[in-house]
This record gives sequence, structure tokens and C-alpha cells, in this order.
Amino acid sequence: MSILKKSIRVGVVGASSLSAGVLLKILSRHKYVSLALLTSQTKTGQEAGEIHRALGNILRLKTTKYEPDKIIRDCDVVFLAKPHGEQLKGTSFLSALAQKTGSAIKFIDLSADFRLKDASLYKEWYGFTHGDRALLKKAVYGLPELYFNKIKDADFIANPGCYSTCAILSLAPILANKLEDKSATVVVEAICGVSGAGRRPNERNMAIEVQENIKPYKIGIHPHTPEIEQELAVLSHRKIKVLFAPCVAPFKYGMLTSSYLKLNKRITTADILKKYRAFYKDAPFIRIMKEGEYPEIQNVTGTNFCDIGVHYNSRTNTCVAMACIDNLFKGAASQAVQNMNIAFGLKQTEGLLF
Amino acid sequence: MSILKKSIRVGVVGASSLSAGVLLKILSRHKYVSLALLTSQTKTGQEAGEIHRALGNILRLKTTKYEPDKIIRDCDVVFLAKPHGEQLKGTSFLSALAQKTGSAIKFIDLSADFRLKDASLYKEWYGFTHGDRALLKKAVYGLPELYFNKIKDADFIANPGCYSTCAILSLAPILANKLEDKSATVVVEAICGVSGAGRRPNERNMAIEVQENIKPYKIGIHPHTPEIEQELAVLSHRKIKVLFAPCVAPFKYGMLTSSYLKLNKRITTADILKKYRAFYKDAPFIRIMKEGEYPEIQNVTGTNFCDIGVHYNSRTNTCVAMACIDNLFKGAASQAVQNMNIAFGLKQTEGLLF
Amino acid sequence: MSILKKSIRVGVVGASSLSAGVLLKILSRHKYVSLALLTSQTKTGQEAGEIHRALGNILRLKTTKYEPDKIIRDCDVVFLAKPHGEQLKGTSFLSALAQKTGSAIKFIDLSADFRLKDASLYKEWYGFTHGDRALLKKAVYGLPELYFNKIKDADFIANPGCYSTCAILSLAPILANKLEDKSATVVVEAICGVSGAGRRPNERNMAIEVQENIKPYKIGIHPHTPEIEQELAVLSHRKIKVLFAPCVAPFKYGMLTSSYLKLNKRITTADILKKYRAFYKDAPFIRIMKEGEYPEIQNVTGTNFCDIGVHYNSRTNTCVAMACIDNLFKGAASQAVQNMNIAFGLKQTEGLLF
Amino acid sequence: MSILKKSIRVGVVGASSLSAGVLLKILSRHKYVSLALLTSQTKTGQEAGEIHRALGNILRLKTTKYEPDKIIRDCDVVFLAKPHGEQLKGTSFLSALAQKTGSAIKFIDLSADFRLKDASLYKEWYGFTHGDRALLKKAVYGLPELYFNKIKDADFIANPGCYSTCAILSLAPILANKLEDKSATVVVEAICGVSGAGRRPNERNMAIEVQENIKPYKIGIHPHTPEIEQELAVLSHRKIKVLFAPCVAPFKYGMLTSSYLKLNKRITTADILKKYRAFYKDAPFIRIMKEGEYPEIQNVTGTNFCDIGVHYNSRTNTCVAMACIDNLFKGAASQAVQNMNIAFGLKQTEGLLF
Repeated sequence: MSILKKSIRVGVVGASSLSAGVLLKILSRHKYVSLALLTSQTKTGQEAGEIHRALGNILRLKTTKYEPDKIIRDCDVVFLAKPHGEQLKGTSFLSALAQKTGSAIKFIDLSADFRLKDASLYKEWYGFTHGDRALLKKAVYGLPELYFNKIKDADFIANPGCYSTCAILSLAPILANKLEDKSATVVVEAICGVSGAGRRPNERNMAIEVQENIKPYKIGIHPHTPEIEQELAVLSHRKIKVLFAPCVAPFKYGMLTSSYLKLNKRITTADILKKYRAFYKDAPFIRIMKEGEYPEIQNVTGTNFCDIGVHYNSRTNTCVAMACIDNLFKGAASQAVQNMNIAFGLKQTEGLLF
Repeated sequence: MSILKKSIRVGVVGASSLSAGVLLKILSRHKYVSLALLTSQTKTGQEAGEIHRALGNILRLKTTKYEPDKIIRDCDVVFLAKPHGEQLKGTSFLSALAQKTGSAIKFIDLSADFRLKDASLYKEWYGFTHGDRALLKKAVYGLPELYFNKIKDADFIANPGCYSTCAILSLAPILANKLEDKSATVVVEAICGVSGAGRRPNERNMAIEVQENIKPYKIGIHPHTPEIEQELAVLSHRKIKVLFAPCVAPFKYGMLTSSYLKLNKRITTADILKKYRAFYKDAPFIRIMKEGEYPEIQNVTGTNFCDIGVHYNSRTNTCVAMACIDNLFKGAASQAVQNMNIAFGLKQTEGLLF
Repeated sequence: MSILKKSIRVGVVGASSLSAGVLLKILSRHKYVSLALLTSQTKTGQEAGEIHRALGNILRLKTTKYEPDKIIRDCDVVFLAKPHGEQLKGTSFLSALAQKTGSAIKFIDLSADFRLKDASLYKEWYGFTHGDRALLKKAVYGLPELYFNKIKDADFIANPGCYSTCAILSLAPILANKLEDKSATVVVEAICGVSGAGRRPNERNMAIEVQENIKPYKIGIHPHTPEIEQELAVLSHRKIKVLFAPCVAPFKYGMLTSSYLKLNKRITTADILKKYRAFYKDAPFIRIMKEGEYPEIQNVTGTNFCDIGVHYNSRTNTCVAMACIDNLFKGAASQAVQNMNIAFGLKQTEGLLF
Repeated sequence: MSILKKSIRVGVVGASSLSAGVLLKILSRHKYVSLALLTSQTKTGQEAGEIHRALGNILRLKTTKYEPDKIIRDCDVVFLAKPHGEQLKGTSFLSALAQKTGSAIKFIDLSADFRLKDASLYKEWYGFTHGDRALLKKAVYGLPELYFNKIKDADFIANPGCYSTCAILSLAPILANKLEDKSATVVVEAICGVSGAGRRPNERNMAIEVQENIKPYKIGIHPHTPEIEQELAVLSHRKIKVLFAPCVAPFKYGMLTSSYLKLNKRITTADILKKYRAFYKDAPFIRIMKEGEYPEIQNVTGTNFCDIGVHYNSRTNTCVAMACIDNLFKGAASQAVQNMNIAFGLKQTEGLLF
């Protein structure tokens, strides 16, 4: 493949966020990547290693201002890492510019702005009206375990939310195998570390508020809800309602989701696990636990793995599907790189097995 | 009341456990209590303040060997704090001895040995055959918010489990008001701090295993399951199946339970909260949160409070009931003292509002 | 004493800070205290139990605006809990007003504004010029283990800093016994939990910055340095220079200080410990560890205790003096109450042995 | 170099320890390494990915029994990762066997057994008599920033202790530049995460003991003391006494050491930092902080970096040298790989810039 003869020229827009930091760490050691440009509105002109101290002595590239022409000209792929909503306008403009100039540039968007196919949901769950339905339609939902072939040919990839990645991956084999009770809804409970809240100071994310505490938040109203529902619907070919209840706990990285759904017939945990292994037989980043074992965050921290464990509760005919990911890796940056690998014809594990 | 003219003479059997440490802390400042004797098999002859370092300079009483006659003679009430199962035999003997000698001694058992009314459940959930059905029948389940009047007259009180206390209190008003869907089961998910595992070293509870991690355990098979089911059945006058899924998180004290159950009709969160406030109007240790607010462990740490928050999810017609307690206080030691207060005719808050 | 016939009427100025929260918790269960008024500039009109959620259902008193006349008229003692510097002006005014009106009110100031006898040090270490040298002169340094008799008669008590309390108490017996090498300086290293930084959001105190990290700060320039130097000088009758190096670690409450100083002759740890025990024989809140044992924060959390352990290192002829306190209790609120107890002729442990 | 034409065949003896886990993670992605064999006494026959769950799906190699002949025959380098003391005998035997058979195998020992040049110190600090003075003499102390050239030609490398690495690296430029006061001793205080205690369960390392606590231990008697003294003596050409005081804090990985020593003349922090930068100008893993900034563990976690910050305290003429490393990486496994890289003529950063 021609791309392998030279490096992929990569740009990162919004290089000062937590997930951008992880992204830069991964990209800086990716053997087919050359970092072409970084932009940051708040920290223009700073070295990446100053913004993200862990990158000191590793990455000396400086951030520049956001210049659309330069981005389109100098990059083969752009990771978009600005906050939700804020980025829609710029992204749409970039994408349009690329099309106009005939650029072969690809976009991987880490925000939520192009994840929901039904544009009207943005108003309801994110509070803004989506202004680019054309691009929304074009965007491929970047969950490689479900959409590998679409991602291969995609120009615009909407990188999934962290909770969504974790919940969807843990539930997909149930729904794909039509095991769920049709009347049932899905309860998804999630426990996330403090990195989920980003870097911006506010009262809720102070150490004094998190230490020795659990903080439930946005119960039933978290905007990853419709994203999970959208993908479960694709898998099951019917509408599925999700009650999503996240909380923050005193650790730094990673998350666990526990999802509960009624099944339509009696089964065993062993049988369910067999279906999971079959469903994910070609997915190098999915690890299915043995019966009686459950995923633990410590085993996925700093990796692109998603560990999944299942318990079938015969007393209530309910399946508990648990999954762990690192929210900044498989939940954001390393999944974005996995998408890049696929979109550029590389091995999907390239630069990600560390 | 005559008892108020003199101190209640208190004995603690099994004084070296974590919850015994909290119990001693509370009892040592309780104005109607005089600590009569402490026993410890593993740490006989040591000062309480050596076993529980936080009690240094506060409690100089030494533990003695376990001598039934002396216990019956010198105490008005005995707190039993030995491990589950181990304690059954001794307790039955003590109780029988008290009866034989006509002693007016009362027992408050912090273990699980007398919580389940159906003796056969012990074999299934705890792995031992219960050998004292008579005492089991006599034992009053010591959840003061539900059994105040029974506790008042009880000679033998089975102090509830920590998870059970938290889950039952958070669900009681729903069931008492017949709001639940009859076909539905209850999912209870719990997050507990490391003190839940006690003091004995084992691989699972090492700091290296807990830090930066979440550890799900005993999913669907935790022995507090039948205890919760027993009390929900009493409240709802029908069998209720519970799927209970606990996990350990990196903090020291306290727990959060989140319980999910389908309702039998549409309602609002505000209406549900009104019913909670009514149900607990005389319960000084229950605090009901406002709509949109959820309980946090940090507000109940070191107290006998149980904070409860509710969200009605209209999308799934499901109620989420969340509660926080300190597992060693309301989940063990301070609830035991609350039971003692009630059984001896004191104000139930005596010595517990700190 | 006449005061014991009725309650001490207590006011708290600046009732929304973290240490005010602890203060209110202690005062609300103190049997000789009646809370007369609370003021808060930022949260006027709110219930104490809303500002400090842990006090919900315990303290319903509402904060009012700051009205000097009312304070002077309605209180026997006022705890001043506003930030350093900000409070100086108001305090001076209050004190002057009290004097003018012949009020017998006492003041206990939790800020740093009256701790340093040499007014010029405020400019150097705190960055403001001290404007009330008369009141500064009158203020008694409220470390009860050293100044019990002065506190008894004091009208104005400057409650010590948290680090200072811990370091001074751990070093006092060495200096009082003239064991230190005269040429030597003292190194004090401290590890403090996140509550040391208060409640106001800023980048440094975000959970993401503290978790899985240690944050050294203000090395050699922390303003508790001159406070420690001042008291060590009083004890040793000569100038002592202190190099103070604090850091923040991922826990919530409490601190450990480790102080290092060369001795002027060879000695044993056992001998040093004997001198510590003698020095603190009448101090109910000081616990001296055995040889080979060191203080741990978990034993003092939520208490007014200061645990001290000492190691004499014969290889370097250096003494390591370690101490633990809870920064919000003995390092702030409970020490303030200890001072109140002494100043009002109560037992110094009154309301503090919990 | 010939070795680059084929992979380095690597063996790991004692593959179940925490640092072996990190070692395997690094080696499994090192492009010039082929893992030849793993041995484990306690977990023989298990896959690496079962012993170290984070390696699941990455490393399927199984551990075998310890067979000296096979090790000598199949490996170019052996990492020895068994506990201190236990390993001495086996190591000596292996090394002798290699010599006898004319094998070109190299050894990198992660234990303390060959770090101290003065064999008599083993009795004093580790409690065992060292039985192989010949091999001890031959062993090169594997701190690449000081002994690069010796390591290049070494057959037997004693990988430094974690605390020692951190303290020595932070002090070396001071001593190499003869800045220290000759009469002075060095105080080294260290704060380490819970991974420092390894995986074996014991009371001190239970989560309940570590959470919300700081645990000082082995004050003045920790066996890394003579190791630090040995290297400081080499640097300064005179005996230096060290008082070393470590403690454990509630985080998982990494450590901070703060070292204090008097200087022999007045200087500025800026001048000291200049000397540090010059001293480490060729050291790719040393990052020197700016004036007023201090190292933080979070920036070195999971890396081979050592971040160093310095404060010159003019008030006490004392230099504070602070350094952070990840105890399992630069303090053990990644430093061992850095040593391997150097000993096999690779770039020292090979496989370590992640």
C-alpha cells in the first residue's frame, strides 16, 4: 500500500485536552505517523511537552493557531479534539474546504458532534441545534469492532463516547444473538475515574469532593444515553430504551460499566460466554473473561483493550454484562488511532499493543 | 425509666474486628453506657487502645477471655461481633444460659447468623446448617426504621447487613406504597469502600489490588441477597427476586447502593420523594435528597445517617433509588447502638448525633 | 465558675469554610455551647446543613450578614474563620468595638493574621502590611500544650496553623531539653491531604492533578515557616532557622510532619522518648509512640489528638521527630474549641473526646 | 553490531513478581527482543497473561521450571527477578555455569544481592552473609547515568534499588561538583506508592491500612541506605552518611525522594540547575525542572524518566533535591531494559520511549 511508503501526516486540533495528551503520546511512538501540526486556542505557541508534562523530552512540537488552509494542505488525517458543540462549526468548515480543494484528508472527530444519526437528538441531549446534517449523514460511527468495513473507507469518523464504547461492546453479542426480552429495557450503570471530567477546574471535580466519595451525576439524563440506544437499535433491529446512571469514583483513569437486561429464555453463563467469544473472534482488543471472573479496570489502564465479563442470573433471568476500558484510551485517543490504522490500511493494532 | 438511673453495663464479644473498633468508639462516649467487659480470642489481654490505635488514650479497658458466666452476670447487653457462622454456637449457648439463669441480658448480634428467618437459606447462601431455629425465630431484625416497636421489646436483635440496610431503606417506601411493577425484579448495584473486607490480609484486599481499580465480586451470589429479598417481601407482601451486584472501590469507609425497579404506573420524581418523606417522617437518621440531587458517601461518613435520593426515569418507567451509609456505622456499629438505645428506652439518637 | 451555669453563646464569622464546617460539627454537640449566630458573605441566609451537607438534619441555624454590633451583643466568644489577610480589618474593628462597649467577648481567630509577633514578617511571608500591632501584641498564640496559662486569661487567641501545630509539638521537647546542636537548622517535611487546600476550585487542587500523584509546593517559602521558627525560638531561647517543605498527597484529611535536627550529644531513642513523655505528661491530646513505632494519620483522623514518634539516628547523630494531626481538627477547628474550653474554665477535653 | 542482525534471546527468572510483569510488558514490544523463556517457582506452567492480567492477549508464553542448563543454552541475557537473598545462590550457580560452559550470556539482577560492593554490609542491612564475593566484585552497578561505559562491557549487572536510583540521581550533580558541606550528612525522605510492597499479602499493605493514611517505615534502617551511601561516596570521594526515611502513601505507582544537604558556600538555585543540566546533558531519561517547579509523580508514571527539581534555601544554606521515578519502571524493570540496551550496543532509549 502506497501510504506505508511514507508516513501519515497527522494534525491535532485542540491539542491541550486530556485526551489529546494521550493521543500525542500514542502518535509520537507510532511508526507510520509524522506529527505535522498541533493547534491550541488556549495554549498557542507552547511545546506539547509543556502542555502535557509527561511528554517532556519526547515531543518538542509547538502548537500553532488554527489555520484551515494549512491544515488541509499539510495533513493526511486530522484528529479533532475540541469540546462538544464548539467544534461543529469549525469541523464542518474544514470538511467543506477539503472537499472543495479536492484534498484526500480524513477526519477523526473525538467530540460528540457527529455521533448521533438523528440530528434532532442534539437539541434534546446536548442543548444545541445541529447545523450540518450532510456531514452527519456522511460520518461513520468509529467503533471498529462493529463497523470495521465502513471505517476502512471513511473520510469522516465520529469517534464514540467512552461510556458508549464500554456499554455497547459489552451488550452487542446479546443483541446480535437476539437473546434479550423484547419488553425489557436496559439499565447501564457506570463508574468512571476523575479523568472523565477533563482538566477544567470546577467545584464538583476538586480533590476534596472526590476523595473518599462516590458522586452519582446526570442520572437518566447523560448524553451518552441516545448514543448507546442508537447502536443497540442497529444491533437488535428494534428500539431499545436505556436508563444510564454514571458516577465518579476516586481513581484516575478507566471505567467499568455494568449493564442489566432481561433475557427471552433461560440459558447459562457458559453459553453466553461462548457467543461472546464467537462474536469477537476477530477483535484483537476484546478480552472475554472466564465464567465467574469479572473485568477490572487495572488490567486495561493505559491500553486499547476492552475486558468483558458476563453473569447470567437464573433467579431473575437477567444478564449482567460488565466491561472495563480506559476512558482516555479505548474510550477516546487509542480508539481514534485504531480508527486511523483501519482507515489507512494498517494493521489495526499498529502502535497500540503496549 | 429505671435504666436511666444507672449506666447500661455493656459487653463486647469479639472486640478486635473493625466494626468492634467503631462500636467501642461510640460506646466510650455514650453517656448511659459503662463498658463492662471486652473479649477477644486473638488479642486477649490487650488494651482496646492498642488493638484499635485510634482509641489510644481514650479506652484503657483490656480484653479478657470469653467466659459465659461472667458475661451473663456482668452485662445488661452484649454486642456479638465475631465472624459469621463462627459465632452461632457461642451465641446460642450464651442465650440459653441467660434464659436458664433468668438473666435480663439483651443480645445484639452484628453477624449474619440470625438475620434470615428461613433457616434453610443459611445452607444455600452461607454454606452452613443453622443449628438454632428457636433463637432464630425469636430474633428481631434490627432495622429501627422498620421495626422500632419490635426492637423496643426484643431480647435478641439481629443487626442487619450493611448492603441490606442501605438497599432496604432506599426501596422500602416504593414497596410500602405498592408502586412497583409486579412482574419486575429488583437490581441492586453497590459500591463499597475497602473497610467492607475487614482487617484480615488476603490477596484481593491488598492496596495494590484496590488502588486505581474497581473490583466486582460475588455478582448474583452475595449472601446479603436473601436478606434484602426477605425484607422487601415483608414490605410488599409478595416474593421479590433481587439481583445484587457489589463491587469494591478505592476509598475507605462507606457505600452507595443504586437500586432499579420498574413501576406499575407513570409518576413523577417529586411524587415519589413526597412518599419517601412521609414514610420516614419519624426517622431521625434518614435524610431524603431534593429532586435532581443524589446521596454522596462523604456526607454520611462516620455517622448513623442514611441519605436517600430518587430518580424516576419516565423513558423506561423505572425508579432509581440511591442510598449512602457508612458501612461500619449505620451498616454495623452505630445501628447496633441505635438498637440498644431503643431496646433500653433511650432516645434513639442518644450518643449518635456526632 | 459562673459560665457553667449557662451555655457559652458562640458566633462563627465565615461559616462556609471547610474548617468552619468541622467547627460547627463539634460545637453542635458541645454540651456547654449554644450557637448564637453564623455569618457568611458568600452564602448568607443558608442553613448550616445546606452549606455543609454532613450537618443536614443536625444544624438548622441559618447564616446572617456580618453585623458587628449584633455579634458583640449576642456572643460570649466568636470564632473567626475568614481567609488570611481579609479578616484582619474586620477583626480589629470587632475587637476595638468590644473594648469600647466594655463587652467581655473573647475572640478565637483561625486565620494567620495574629500568629506572628513580629509584624514585619507579614509583609515578607503573607504579602500584606499588618495594620494592628496593638492587637497583635495582645493576641495569645493558642497552642494549649505550650500556653495553657496564657490561654486561660486570653481575650484574643490566635489559633495556630496546621503545619505549625504539628511541627512545633513534635519538636518542643527536644528544644526545651536543649538537646539540639546549636549550629544546626531544622528541616521540616510535611505531607498533607487535599482538605488542606480548602474548597475553592483551582487547577492545582483538581482530583485529576492530585490522584496518583504527590505535589510538592512552596518549598522553602511556605508562610508557616516563620510561625514554626517563632515558637522554636521561644522554646530554645535562640534563633532557629527552619527549612519547611510541604507536599499534597491523595488522601482527604490529616497530615504528617517529619522534622530532622542534629543533636548536641549522643543519646538513645528510649531516652528521648522518656523526655517527650515527661514534657507532655499533662497533655491529654498528645500520644507518644513506643520506640520503633511511628505515627499514622489514620489514628488521628477526626480527632484532636497529636501522635508523636521519634527515631534517634546514631549514624548521623540526627533526631527524626514525626507527628500526625488532622489538619481540620487539631490543626484548626478542634484546637480552637480546646482553646475555648480553656478560656472559659472548662475541662480542655470537653466535647473533644469522640 | 552482530547482535542487531538477530533478536536478543531473553530469559526472565522469577516471572511472577510485580516488576517482572512490567519487564514482560516492555520486553514484549521491544523490537530487538525475543522472549526465550520465563521461569516461576510459584506459578509454573501458567501463561504470562494469566499471571499478569494486563498482558492477556499480548503474551501467551508459559512459565517453566528453573533449569540452569536450558537457561544458559537458550538465552543471551537473563533478568533475575526473584526476592532479595533467595536468589543469590541460584544466581552464583548460573553465573559459574555460564563461565564453565563458555557461554556469552549476560545477567541483569533486579534484586539487591549484588549492589553493595562491601560484602559485610549484607549481614548488617539484609541479615544474610554474602557468599559470592567474586561475583560481587565483578558485578557492575547498573545506573546508566553514572556507569554507561562499564555497563557497555558488563556481563553481570546489579540493577539499582528504586529509592537508591531516585536519591542518587537527584544528588549526583551536587557531589560531583563538590558543592556539599563536608561536615554535613544527607537526609533523604521518600514517599512511595503501594506497588513498592509487592504482591504478597500482609497486614501492613492491606488497602484498609493504606487508604487515608501515610505509613512511615524502617526509619533509619532501610537497606537502601548503604546503597545510596556507596554511590554518594564514589561521587564525592569521601564517606557520606545518609539518614533515609521512607513512607508509603495511598497511590499505586511511583515515588518522590526529597534530599536535604548543607552546601559549602552560598549559591543560587539557578546556578545549581545549570550544573544539573550540564551533568545530565547526555542522559535522555533525566528531565531537569525549571526554577520554582518540582517533580510530580504523575509525569513519570509508566516511563523510564527521572524528573529532578532543586531548591536552594538561602536561609539555611541547604539544598533540597527532589526527584520522581516510577518505582517499577526506572526503579526496576525499564532501567533493567535500559541496561540491556547498553550492554547489547543498542540505543539506550530503544523500546523505552512510550
